[in-house]
This record gives sequence, structure tokens and C-alpha cells, in this order.
Amino acid sequence: MLRGTGVSPGIVFGKVLIIKNEPLIIKKDKIKNVEIEKSSLLNALENSKEELMKIKEKAMLEMGEEKAAIFDAHLNILQDPELLKNTLTEIETNSINAAYAFQTVAEQFIAIFESMDNEYMKERSADIKDVSDRVVRNILGQKVVELSSLDEEVILVAHDLTPSDTAAMDKKKVKGFLTNLGGRTSHTAIMARTLEIPAIIGLKTITEQVENSDFVVLNGETGDVIINPKKDEIDDFYRRREVYMKNRENLIAMKGRESTTIDGKKVELAGNIGTANDISSLKKHDAEGVGLFRTEFVYIERNALPTEDEQFEEYKKVLEAWNTKPVVVRTMDIGGDKKLPYLGVEEEVNPFLGYRAIRLCLKEKEIFKTQLRALLRASIYGELKIMFPMISSLEELLEAKEVLHGAKLSLDEDNIPYANHIEVGMMIEVPSAAIISDILAKHVDFFSIGTNDLVQYTCAVDRMNEKIHHLYNPLNPAVLRLIKMVIDNGHQAGIWVGMCGEMAGDESMIPLLIGMGLDEFSMSATSILPARKQITSLSYETVKQLVDQVMKMGTVKEIEAFMEKMTNA
Amino acid sequence: MLRGTGVSPGIVFGKVLIIKNEPLIIKKDKIKNVEIEKSSLLNALENSKEELMKIKEKAMLEMGEEKAAIFDAHLNILQDPELLKNTLTEIETNSINAAYAFQTVAEQFIAIFESMDNEYMKERSADIKDVSDRVVRNILGQKVVELSSLDEEVILVAHDLTPSDTAAMDKKKVKGFLTNLGGRTSHTAIMARTLEIPAIIGLKTITEQVENSDFVVLNGETGDVIINPKKDEIDDFYRRREVYMKNRENLIAMKGRESTTIDGKKVELAGNIGTANDISSLKKHDAEGVGLFRTEFVYIERNALPTEDEQFEEYKKVLEAWNTKPVVVRTMDIGGDKKLPYLGVEEEVNPFLGYRAIRLCLKEKEIFKTQLRALLRASIYGELKIMFPMISSLEELLEAKEVLHGAKLSLDEDNIPYANHIEVGMMIEVPSAAIISDILAKHVDFFSIGTNDLVQYTCAVDRMNEKIHHLYNPLNPAVLRLIKMVIDNGHQAGIWVGMCGEMAGDESMIPLLIGMGLDEFSMSATSILPARKQITSLSYETVKQLVDQVMKMGTVKEIEAFMEKMTNA
Repeated sequence: MLRGTGVSPGIVFGKVLIIKNEPLIIKKDKIKNVEIEKSSLLNALENSKEELMKIKEKAMLEMGEEKAAIFDAHLNILQDPELLKNTLTEIETNSINAAYAFQTVAEQFIAIFESMDNEYMKERSADIKDVSDRVVRNILGQKVVELSSLDEEVILVAHDLTPSDTAAMDKKKVKGFLTNLGGRTSHTAIMARTLEIPAIIGLKTITEQVENSDFVVLNGETGDVIINPKKDEIDDFYRRREVYMKNRENLIAMKGRESTTIDGKKVELAGNIGTANDISSLKKHDAEGVGLFRTEFVYIERNALPTEDEQFEEYKKVLEAWNTKPVVVRTMDIGGDKKLPYLGVEEEVNPFLGYRAIRLCLKEKEIFKTQLRALLRASIYGELKIMFPMISSLEELLEAKEVLHGAKLSLDEDNIPYANHIEVGMMIEVPSAAIISDILAKHVDFFSIGTNDLVQYTCAVDRMNEKIHHLYNPLNPAVLRLIKMVIDNGHQAGIWVGMCGEMAGDESMIPLLIGMGLDEFSMSATSILPARKQITSLSYETVKQLVDQVMKMGTVKEIEAFMEKMTNA
Repeated sequence: MLRGTGVSPGIVFGKVLIIKNEPLIIKKDKIKNVEIEKSSLLNALENSKEELMKIKEKAMLEMGEEKAAIFDAHLNILQDPELLKNTLTEIETNSINAAYAFQTVAEQFIAIFESMDNEYMKERSADIKDVSDRVVRNILGQKVVELSSLDEEVILVAHDLTPSDTAAMDKKKVKGFLTNLGGRTSHTAIMARTLEIPAIIGLKTITEQVENSDFVVLNGETGDVIINPKKDEIDDFYRRREVYMKNRENLIAMKGRESTTIDGKKVELAGNIGTANDISSLKKHDAEGVGLFRTEFVYIERNALPTEDEQFEEYKKVLEAWNTKPVVVRTMDIGGDKKLPYLGVEEEVNPFLGYRAIRLCLKEKEIFKTQLRALLRASIYGELKIMFPMISSLEELLEAKEVLHGAKLSLDEDNIPYANHIEVGMMIEVPSAAIISDILAKHVDFFSIGTNDLVQYTCAVDRMNEKIHHLYNPLNPAVLRLIKMVIDNGHQAGIWVGMCGEMAGDESMIPLLIGMGLDEFSMSATSILPARKQITSLSYETVKQLVDQVMKMGTVKEIEAFMEKMTNA
């Protein structure tokens, strides 16, 4: 039995499929019949095109346009006339095999892109390599592990999963993920929760410990994996699975209910989204609003900034889909671990402590104003609230509000309508903002606490750094004190306070957050019903008293032990 | 007139000397007389050796053994028998000129070192390049800008200065520095203050704006530079210089006095040191103790960990030099921007939020225990206090104290004596530590606030990142609130609270820090007398009231304006 980090719940049993993309080594062969090689090339191109169209279509349906755009790029490469022409010339002039000829020409293209002094172009070389591998495998008639068309149900085992792996895969056939790398907030973890696929990550060497013929049991809640389980372990698996399924049914009964404690304290349970497509999942899980719309997806996977109209269409789609429910839109949070190659921002020594989010927006005010104009234009289609990320001082907040005011004036001049009252709020994710939240609260309509970054900065711990992962814990007593301070200061000033980090959906945190008086919780769609179930069984008066006791505690261990005792009492 | 960041005070007027190390390009020549080339090589080696011996000697005297060690490495390279033998063979076999032959052989050595998969070895290749350039210039009879033997007084202009530039230079002839790069806490800035040489950094293009024949006036306090000043500007310079010199005299009058406000509040003004050699400067400036001994210098510029005995000797030297005055020793603060190649720690994406200082020590407990044993052994030679850096939780503090306890037990077993009562404290530089300082205070004898990192984490700003430098300000209201909280919590628990960041010596901060009740200030040697002068003119009762008002303010600008008004009132 192995133990990793369970990041998406569910108990499954299935056959292993290891994804390992071995490098393709093609030998140069002298051939006799040039025509056969040429038609083999053309067939392979046609097959590759069909594969890519299918993947793209699937990605569109399941993940939204932004995620699907990468496959448009792949299709463009595939249909590049130079690539075809040069390969045909190679085959004819040198009488060589199609696979070798195509790979050689593709490598020349890759070398050209790699030598360009432009991050965006350099990244494109990886796309050409992907496409080239696909075509060559088709020429050779090799069976590719095609995640979009699996024959049987499998549990995927990989070093790590890329966004395109997850976009392409057949969600009906993939019953679980197991990966070597990753943390609770990694891409793989977030995708697994979004897709509702049980997943365990951070298993270090799982790709070496299993083979394709193995069977595994995985428990996405506890993080346990059993390789080739014995009869009694399989029996145990079915028992646990039954309990799990029963719990799921109880959750479904939570739909349509209010999120209110037994003594009548009502909160709002909202969801986090990246694109308009994510709304359907929020509806399915009965979210009461969107607590965080991450607008980065409007900017990534492109080679230039999106226009105001392009952004307007996307924001309108989200607001229309929700209609009267509130949608909190976070303005651009680019930088840190999310870079835009086309902005040409230099590499930084400490990107998490660097030029990102509102800092970039306040320097590149035209980019910021374009987004704000697009948002204001969309505001008449629903219940928009605007939120600024990474505010660390009152100066920044006032400057951001000034830009928003300028955007409104420019729309007035253009006679373009926008909603009358739009709430304006800010993220609390930098310690300095939490510490002066009494002052900041006077200038906004709401706060939303971003716990991922708040923990990271408060404890000086990069949450992606495995070596110091033990220091990253939302139950850190200093973090809890800051959260309470922010909620108290918000209420003192008469504004509502939400939370949109991973912590908001964490059942070990929810009693404390309710006790502190948090008004809104925004989380992954799948966490909403479990959170509601938990909240409806809590007493506000009791958890308020728990908070008073926890605030005096000095270690995570002490707090954990206390909370556990209280939960079982 | 230009304006940069004045980082070391003083007003000087002088001739410019630009340091530009142009790459040396040597042509291959067929020569007739092999013997002449061989003797020219041997002479050049001899001259280079003499130059290096002189630089080393100077570095030993002025900067201490650690800084001088790099020149031992250079001398070793110079005397490498393989280097000589191969060059002689090249000259003889191919009848080529000595300069080309030596450079070719040196480049082969460089290539070998560069190809090694070891950061330490890779760095050595830069040393070989330096030595090779020196020898080749000597063969060619080229005059090198030799900072150790300048003919006349100059103001150095450079892109940036390296530790070896500053080690080698003739401090009697160098009257000032001007550099393109750098921030207030950069190496150049710290060195300039240590050497008491007026300096302005961050001038961006100064190396292109002046020529060697130009004269400049520089004011290291305001950051102003005038290139080729006019008569009235020179007159103005002399006037200002006189005021400055007068102020200096007033400072000298501060020696031997207590650091007490007019209404009797006494504080301790201590100094920051890196090696035992820095003590003489602290004595000269009448420091009342060592508030921060950075032990990193024991670990750097080496290719293996220092032994317990080596460390013991260094710590003993410091404690003996001070005798009865307190010496606060910070345990190893490696990691972040200070890496040790021989520890083999991987590169990190966000080193400032990474595996450093106490985090490394608590994983590599043998390294930590060796240092603690060496410190304990040295404790009988003076007034030692031990301080742990980067503590972010109570768990870490208790674990570090446990290791210290273990080191004491092991010395007991070995019958080795150590002082009876040694104060144990911790740095407050991570926001989480500040926030739970009420709890931490019960487990230590003192706190020392490290403002450089505290500002960095509290505001999520890498202080070395030029793009967001405007967000890094110790007068940030959130930072001031944290500092006050730490001092209050310390006093509540009956312990003393010091500060050892750049902020402790900043005259715009001192009134606030006195008002908050800070007990100890540790700073650069040159800041001590100005700080004492300022403190002896303050009223504790008045600055306490200022603090109450500042604590309610929301922006740096508001605080700055208020403090300025108060200072001038």
C-alpha cells in the first residue's frame, strides 16, 4: 500500500494505464518507390487531422473554448504548406522514407522557432514536436496511447498531467489519476476536482512501481493506493465504496436547500470558475453564485492580448448563464506562475514576490482599462461584482478604483450603458492588506480572502516547493488570526467578507470559518454540497466558542487535535 | 545633474575612473624566437603573482581572511604546473606567441571546469578567466586598471562592483562609487557603508554618461551627481561639504556617551558584523555590542563545510575581541539569495519563499549541531547570545531549542565547558512569527526584528526586483503595525526586543522605533553615532504620542508627511 495526497474524492478499482511518451527514433532508409512513401505521408496527415479534430471537439464540449484553442494551433501546424512541400521534396530528391523525411523537416522548423528570441515562439516549438510525433506515429502505423479513445476503463498513471492530456482524455473511461508530482493546489489536482475524477498525487515513483497489467484500488479521500489488492482488500474496497456512494446520495438531498446552521446563521456557498463552460458544473452542484471568476483564461493560450469585444463576449456569456445570481469577477491575475509570453515580461528571481496581478495592471493601464470596459459593458447582463487581486496597500486600491472610474467615464462618452450599482471589492491575499483591513474596508463593498497566497506569504512558504511543504498549512495559527482579523474588520465597516481559496471548501476549516462569521464561501463545484451538508449540522453559537479557544493556540498540531476532539464530541 | 540612490553619505568632488573590462582578443602569431616568448611568459607569471600577493595582503588587512581567500585560489591557479607545462609545449611545438598560447591553454581548463556538473567547479572557471586575463595583459605589457595601486584620487564608475573589486581597491585613493545597478541593500551599498566611502547606485547608464577625463561632484546622502560642475556648483559643493564635515565633528562628540533620550529612556545601539575583522570598525564608532553576527561568512567561499574547530576559532575571535559586550550570533542563514554550492541544494522557483536558514538547519541537523557546539565552546570567551533566523512557527522554535539542548548534552558528555547562562532568541522576519509573537515570546529570551525580510514577506515584494521597488517601504503602515505588535508582545512577556535590519539605522524610522519602545538597535557601524545624536535629542513622551497617531494612518505618503512635519516642528 502506498499513500499520496488525495486531492479529489472517490473510491475506485481498475486497471492501470501508464502514460509514457517514449522518444521516437526513426532510421533513415533508402526507398525504391517514391510514390508509396508520398501517399503514406498524405494518409498519415489525414489521419492526424481527424484525430486532432476529435480531440478539439471533445475539449470544446468538456473544457471550453480556451482550452480547445491549443488544438487549433496543432491543426494549423499540420496543414502548413511549407511543411508538406519540403517533406515531399526530401522524399523525392533523396529517395528516403517518409517518416524520416517528415521528422527531419519538422526538426528544422523546431530549430528555427527555438532560436527565436521570443518566449511565445519558443513554446510553439513544443507544439510542432507534438504534431510531428503524431504524424510520424501515423506513418509507422504505431498505436498511440490515445487518451481520447480508450478501449476500456482505466486508472491513468503518469509522472504529471498536462492541460492537453486532461483536455484530450475520455472522461468516461478514465476512472482515476495517480501521479508522481503535484501538490493540493497543482493543475492536476484542480482539474481532477473539476472533472470529478478521484485522484491521488505526489506519489513520487508510482510510474515505476506499477505496470500496465496491474490493478489498483485508490481512495481519493485518504490518498491510499493498493497495488494488486488481495481478496479481503477488494471486499473492503466494496464496503467502503458503498459507504461513499451512500454519502453521495445524502449530498444530492442537499440540493435546493439553504446553507444555514441549525441555529439560523445563513451563509452563501458559491463556486470558482475559469470560463463560461464551468457554469454548468456549478448549476449541477447547486452553487448560490460565482465567488471567483478567474479571468486569466481570457488571456492565456493566445499570441496577443484579447480585444475589448472578445472579452466582453466571454464575460457576457458568464453573466447571462447565471442571470440573477452574483458573479464576482477577479481582474487579470497574470504573473507569478502564470506568464503571458506575448507581454514580454522578464523572468524574475522570485516570481511569487514579483510583478503580477494588480501591480502589472497599474503599470499597463491600457490593458487594465480594456478589461474594465469589457466588464462594465457586460454588467447589464447579470449581477456583476468586480474584485482586484494582490492589493497590498491603500494606495494601490485607490489607484485601481481610479482606473475603474476612468473606464466608466469613457463609456459615458461613448454612450455605452453599464449597470447602475456594481459592487467593487478586493482580494485579501497579501499579509499587509489583512493587517490594515480596517482601513481598506472603508473603500470597498466586500473582501474575498485568497488563502493560497495568504498562507504562502504569511509563512514565507512557496506552496509548490516540496522541500518545505510541511510549513504550508491553512490551520497555521497566524493565518487563522489574520482571517479572523479581516472578517472582524470587514463587519465593523459594514461590508461582507468571503473566501475563495482552497481552504473555503475544506471540511476541517469550515467550522472555524463559520464561527469567525465568514459570509461567503467560494470553492470547487464538487465541494459545495458536502460543505452545505456540514454547515446545516453545525451550531453557530458552538463554533463561535471554538474559535475563541483556537485563537489562543500556538501550533497546528494543537489546533488539529482540538478540532478533531470537538468534531467527535 | 543626475539622481540615483545615495547609499553611503559624504560629499566628494573628483576625477572619474571608469572600470570596463573589455574582452581581450589575442591573435595567433608565428614567432621566430621561442626563447623570447618563453621568458616573456615566465616574467608575466612572476608579475601577476606579485600583483595578486599585494591584493591579497591588502584584502586581509582591510576586509578579513574570508574575503581574502579568493585570492589564494587565484594564486593556486597561477602556479598550476599543468598550465605552465602545456603553455610551454604550445609555444615550442607550434612556434606561436606566448599570449595566444597561454590563453588557449587557459580556455581548455575553463572548458573542463564549465562542463563539470557541480556548481562550485563551474564558478571556479570564472576565477581561471580572471587569472588568465591578468597574465595575458602582463605578457602584452598592457596597463590594467589596477584598483589596488591607483596613481591619483578617483571616483570609480562601474556597471556594478564585485566583492573582489572592492577587496582589491586602494581605499585611500577611491573617494566615491557611482554604479548603474544596485539597491539600498545590495552588496555594493553595504560595502560602501562598511568602507565609509560615499556612494550612489542605481544610476542606470552612468558608465555611458561620463568619460575618464570628466570630473563629478557626488552627494552620497541625497543621491545627486553633477558631471563637470560649473564654478557656482563647485562653490556650492564646498559650502555643503563644510556643513557635512561640521556634522561629522558633532558626531565624534557622541563617542562614549549613553544612547538616552532627553527624558531618560535608554536604548542599546549595537552593530552588524560578518567576520571578526569588522569588530574594529564597531569599536571605532563606539557600538555598545554586536546585535547581529552573520555567520554565513564562515560557510561561503569554501568547497566544503567548515569543521567544528574552524568555526570555534572564528567565534572565539569575535567574542574575545568584544570581551564583556554582548554578541548576538545568528545561526546559519544559508539559502534564498545565499547558496552554498557544496551543499548541492537544487535551484528553487522562489528562493526567498524556499528552503533556507532554520528550515535547512532542521533538516540537516548535523550541520546545525556542529555550529551550535562550536558556538557553545566559544561562549566562555565573552557574552554570547544565540539567535535563530526565519522562524515561522512555534514548532520550529521548539525544535531548534531541542537541537541546542542536544548540543549542550553532547558537550557535557565530552567534558567540554560552556557558559552557564546563554540567552536564546529568535529573529522576527516572517509575518506569521510577528502575528503569534505573544505565544513565541514565552519561549525565548529576546526577539530581533529583521526588517528586510519582514517587509518583503508582509508586502509580498522581492526587494531586489526593480519593477516593484516602489512597493518596498519600511514605512508601510502594515509593517509598522507588526513591529509595534512584536515589541508590545515581547514586553508583555518580559523580554527585550531588538531590530537588526537596515531600518534600525534609518533616521526617518528611529523616532517611531523609540516611541514603540524598541530596546536595541543593530546597524552598520557608520550609522551608530548619527543614531545616538538623533536619539539624545528626542523626547520619549513625544515620540510615544507620534506612534499612536501613525498607527491609524493608511498610506506611506501620509506617514511620511506627518513625520516630516513633526521633525520640522
